[in-house]
Amino acid sequence: MASAADSHWMAHALRLAERGLNTTSPNPRVGCVLVKDGIVIGEGWHERAGELHAEPIALHAAGERARGATAYVTLEPCSHFGRTPPCADALIAAGVARVVIAMQDPNPLVSGRGVAKLRDSGIVVETGLMEASARELNLGFVSRMTRGMPWVRSKIAASLDGRTALANGVSQWITGPAARQDVQRLRARSCAVLTGIGTVLADDPQLNVRDSEVVRQPLRVVLDSHLQISSSSRILQGGPVLIYAAIPDSAKITLLEQLGAQVVVLPNPDEQVDLPAMLGDLARRGINEVLVEAGAKLNGGLLQAGLVDELLLYLAPQLLGDEARGMAALGNLMALDQRIELQWQDVRHVGSDLRLTARINRP
Amino acid sequence: MASAADSHWMAHALRLAERGLNTTSPNPRVGCVLVKDGIVIGEGWHERAGELHAEPIALHAAGERARGATAYVTLEPCSHFGRTPPCADALIAAGVARVVIAMQDPNPLVSGRGVAKLRDSGIVVETGLMEASARELNLGFVSRMTRGMPWVRSKIAASLDGRTALANGVSQWITGPAARQDVQRLRARSCAVLTGIGTVLADDPQLNVRDSEVVRQPLRVVLDSHLQISSSSRILQGGPVLIYAAIPDSAKITLLEQLGAQVVVLPNPDEQVDLPAMLGDLARRGINEVLVEAGAKLNGGLLQAGLVDELLLYLAPQLLGDEARGMAALGNLMALDQRIELQWQDVRHVGSDLRLTARINRP
Repeated sequence: MASAADSHWMAHALRLAERGLNTTSPNPRVGCVLVKDGIVIGEGWHERAGELHAEPIALHAAGERARGATAYVTLEPCSHFGRTPPCADALIAAGVARVVIAMQDPNPLVSGRGVAKLRDSGIVVETGLMEASARELNLGFVSRMTRGMPWVRSKIAASLDGRTALANGVSQWITGPAARQDVQRLRARSCAVLTGIGTVLADDPQLNVRDSEVVRQPLRVVLDSHLQISSSSRILQGGPVLIYAAIPDSAKITLLEQLGAQVVVLPNPDEQVDLPAMLGDLARRGINEVLVEAGAKLNGGLLQAGLVDELLLYLAPQLLGDEARGMAALGNLMALDQRIELQWQDVRHVGSDLRLTARINRP
Repeated sequence: MASAADSHWMAHALRLAERGLNTTSPNPRVGCVLVKDGIVIGEGWHERAGELHAEPIALHAAGERARGATAYVTLEPCSHFGRTPPCADALIAAGVARVVIAMQDPNPLVSGRGVAKLRDSGIVVETGLMEASARELNLGFVSRMTRGMPWVRSKIAASLDGRTALANGVSQWITGPAARQDVQRLRARSCAVLTGIGTVLADDPQLNVRDSEVVRQPLRVVLDSHLQISSSSRILQGGPVLIYAAIPDSAKITLLEQLGAQVVVLPNPDEQVDLPAMLGDLARRGINEVLVEAGAKLNGGLLQAGLVDELLLYLAPQLLGDEARGMAALGNLMALDQRIELQWQDVRHVGSDLRLTARINRP
């Protein structure tokens, strides 16, 4: 059974896994620690797809000392040949005596197979230690594997009275530099940043990670049902861009493709982009975490369709008044039971602003 | 100079003072501890106007032992004959050797006189220990003495997107029972609860303290420029009511007075109630703390006039959408420098809701 020492080492493995926060996608973030006689003899974390997994890195560092050691792994070791050989085989070959796993593989097609392979070879396997933290670390990957959808996080910067811009559109800056820096960190960990054509036309944002060295920029995604985007939009520069449209305007599509963007036509019967289909398509492209940075219309549409998982609300200590713009167009609710309910996840000060994280209540 | 022991005893005196939170108005909340040889020999707090002050209660408990003791008082002892004899004289007569005072009397007409009287009699006097906490405890009294205005606290219950009711007016209940209970505590400590005629006509609230035994109900104040209040309004029952109007409709005024309400006509040139004059009038009536429980119009009017000191925002983890009602009508701002800026005072969970306390930035 798990001891205090086990918890200590698993926490260490989770911290290692977290180093891959901005780089592992579409793979999950995974860390591994090899311990023998109370001493770390090898550790590793997965850095990016196509490169080594956490376990072989740790095993390589430990070398012969791995024999008889305990391995702490944040995610069940893989049992199949992918871009790298199975990690379960590597642990067996190295003679590891015990493997402690935070969570099983969320992919229903392979979940449990790594554990079974290890056990079949005589290794003692324990699972579920710090599972909640491990799930949290890979909530996008888990979502994609179990629901076929990315984890959708909507970021909104607003005044205390819930206003994101003045009636005339002025919004720079409602929140302070620390909040904007925090959003850069959010973008860096996200596989994709999604916005609507309204925001592109009004603010002409670039939506990339600017303030730090990044191994990969998030995919920028624009929802543009009627392909109104201008070829001079700044979002078309600085990295990969994916545009979802509802009309097959081949001339415009060709123009955008020449500018380096990819265009996907996914209409619903109302000639708007089909939102669930769009997110399903993003999941198939390996997108684990989507950050929505959009206006009231797209936020409202995603919320009403039940497609938002988490709200990140940066509240500035100021009031803009009732004529300023709101954060989510949800139509005219007639009774309170039509409201969207959430639960608090985290509350903290970020510079002069307050950051509220809440998750949508699922039925 | 103040020692750790001094801080300990002053903190105790502040806790005693706090027992008068709901009862001392129009007087301040004051606590007193008499200590000799490290032992409390008497303590007291002011409970309500017309009754004994904190110092004579503590002195009475100590009796002869007060000679040579140290007195810890949260507010400068009074030096004048009011409804009770001067507390400074009582401390001198009892032979107290040292008096430690958290804050001087904020009333500019008497501030420092108690200290001078004590010093003139040879008592060692120290002031300023835990002054910030002492001011906080009596912020309404301090405001009234220094500005001739009460401390105005606006309470708003809203969804995460800043909405206080659906477009059709439905608002029961956005926040949960713990938040509503917290509002009862706010009402109990307030000298007056202020609302607008819009809220009275729409919700017919009683705005009194219901869930606990109270020594005194807050004065309920209705801003009703055109005397639209119905004689069957629930707010006209259950305690004193003050109505501010802008028209001298003597028939309606007589009717309301027969129902027990008091009516004050205070028009501004726009035939609305003059808001600064109204608050000045409340201060002259001894009102230290006003709790505003109103809709977007009155909240907006008070905020725009710079008359709100503090915002207490109960945020429920839910979204009502952009068509629902906002919290403050501030007109159509054209630039962000027209916004109202605040600073955070306190953030905490209250049951399932979040309570944000912020104070208006003063130039």
